Amino acid sequence: MIRTLPLALPLSLAALVLSLPATAQDAPSPNQVVAEANAEEWVKIAPEDLLVMTLAPDRDGEAREVVIQLMPEPFSQGWVANIRTLARAGWYDGISVNRVQDNYVVQWGDPNYDNPEAEGAAKPLPDGLRVMDESDYVDVVRAAEPGDDKIVLWHPRPDLRDIYAQIATFAKGWPIGIETTQDTKAVRRWPVHCYGMVGVGRGMSPDTGSGAELYTVIGHAPRHLDRNIALVGRIVSGMEYLSSLPRGTGDLGFYTSEEADERTPILSIRVASDLPAAEQPKFEYLSTAGGTFLRYAEARANRRDPFFIMPAGGADICNIPVPLRAAPAD
Amino acid sequence: MIRTLPLALPLSLAALVLSLPATAQDAPSPNQVVAEANAEEWVKIAPEDLLVMTLAPDRDGEAREVVIQLMPEPFSQGWVANIRTLARAGWYDGISVNRVQDNYVVQWGDPNYDNPEAEGAAKPLPDGLRVMDESDYVDVVRAAEPGDDKIVLWHPRPDLRDIYAQIATFAKGWPIGIETTQDTKAVRRWPVHCYGMVGVGRGMSPDTGSGAELYTVIGHAPRHLDRNIALVGRIVSGMEYLSSLPRGTGDLGFYTSEEADERTPILSIRVASDLPAAEQPKFEYLSTAGGTFLRYAEARANRRDPFFIMPAGGADICNIPVPLRAAPAD
Repeated sequence: MIRTLPLALPLSLAALVLSLPATAQDAPSPNQVVAEANAEEWVKIAPEDLLVMTLAPDRDGEAREVVIQLMPEPFSQGWVANIRTLARAGWYDGISVNRVQDNYVVQWGDPNYDNPEAEGAAKPLPDGLRVMDESDYVDVVRAAEPGDDKIVLWHPRPDLRDIYAQIATFAKGWPIGIETTQDTKAVRRWPVHCYGMVGVGRGMSPDTGSGAELYTVIGHAPRHLDRNIALVGRIVSGMEYLSSLPRGTGDLGFYTSEEADERTPILSIRVASDLPAAEQPKFEYLSTAGGTFLRYAEARANRRDPFFIMPAGGADICNIPVPLRAAPAD
Repeated sequence: MIRTLPLALPLSLAALVLSLPATAQDAPSPNQVVAEANAEEWVKIAPEDLLVMTLAPDRDGEAREVVIQLMPEPFSQGWVANIRTLARAGWYDGISVNRVQDNYVVQWGDPNYDNPEAEGAAKPLPDGLRVMDESDYVDVVRAAEPGDDKIVLWHPRPDLRDIYAQIATFAKGWPIGIETTQDTKAVRRWPVHCYGMVGVGRGMSPDTGSGAELYTVIGHAPRHLDRNIALVGRIVSGMEYLSSLPRGTGDLGFYTSEEADERTPILSIRVASDLPAAEQPKFEYLSTAGGTFLRYAEARANRRDPFFIMPAGGADICNIPVPLRAAPAD
């Protein structure tokens, strides 16, 4: 179809319209792109890397289960090991969600640890935890290669790919920031704070986070926390049970002692591989190294499915969530 | 204090450390910067620009009031006028929150309008509404000046200020995107989709949004909606009553007909200037043209208050929320 453009249309806009595919109205949405992925592009998550967090039932008696994926190497492995140790010691059983700060984080742990509303003594931690420091959170690779995956974050201007890092991209299914230090040619890489990412709460000193206090992001990506607090994973299922909790009215969104009954009890946190096979949740993510993910990222950056009239021309890394799904039965 | 840096520290990091103020550990947080603003830097919001939305009380009988600020000229004035017309006709009284999609939007309106779960006929709209089109949402200024305010979004590299627009900045207290078209020297400006912004729901065609269906952002900024759906305001108080609602399990987060009792009733929406003086909410925002806002934006981009060990070096516009507060008594 040949269209005659109105004469008053600015040339730059005309160029944009003309560069769209002729079938723009039938362009697939990002979800439709993902639905077309081959089975081989979905990567199964090992049960050792999944945590099952069981919250107390809600007011209507409905069960609430949250599944968390722990990060693979090379990131945050000391904390990840601590979290498995804490889960296997049963340490998390009986703790609670103590902080819900709107447009920021939900935090769970011991209500008497580092809480402005603490009323008793902190729960003793089990033996065998490693003392970690924030510097262990950033991976330093002595090579010019930026990662295991291709850099896929789509933007017509590479220098506009990210505001918080030289490059933001995806590696092994995770959103990461990258910087190259000029003098050493070392590459520094770190996971970034997108919605649903899980991190390690800590005190003022960077070596005070054990993995006993955890949080997840429930608002706009607080990227200023990148390289300041260690990320250890992400929520893969049940996010809505955390993001919809009532907000705390105390300092930093902690529930005050008057609101103590708002603290959602955590009945247990288990490593999925420790559960009977039939009870193990099975999830997978779309490989971020495949062609489908590249097309998905491009579709997120330039929505051309029917609702949209103006493609954005770019997308920030946290606006390209890595697709996750329950694994189909074998 | 003179520090000896370890020899292994990369030079670029050393330079960063040395460029911090000597009193880095005492640097104020963004909130502390805002607390130091002079009274003249706070701008009162006119009662004509505030809506009071009263939700039904929660399960514990607690009242839930949400206050919305409507946008000033030049943006979206046709929809803003429609919203006042709808409020004054009592049209919103008895509608409900019909859609809560995690990490995206909460939407309220007629449960039988453009809802995959509709069960009855749509509620007739009052007379006097303007038919608006998305092209009325973008302001085109025939001048080289980008706005009324100075451009204050801090970043050491101006070309890294935004991923979705040539420039993202603030004007009259609102976050906006700016693009200059090369051929006409016209400046195109539009408000952007940050957390808590309020927009006009519409169908597939860009002229189908009247202002009867409204939504607010409850997750990571969906900037791909910029210039695709008209923004008309933002939540200034009571956001937590919307963001913590249970998520809908239907298509696009709509509550299914089986979940119809999850739809939160909206008892009324009133223009604040129509209320008795004693019942009018009073709010103000920090001028985005003043020196305090510039220092606040810089502090958001480079956190140096005690918890932080690595300033980000930049911030995206939605990570610099415009400070809002209840106005002190006269």
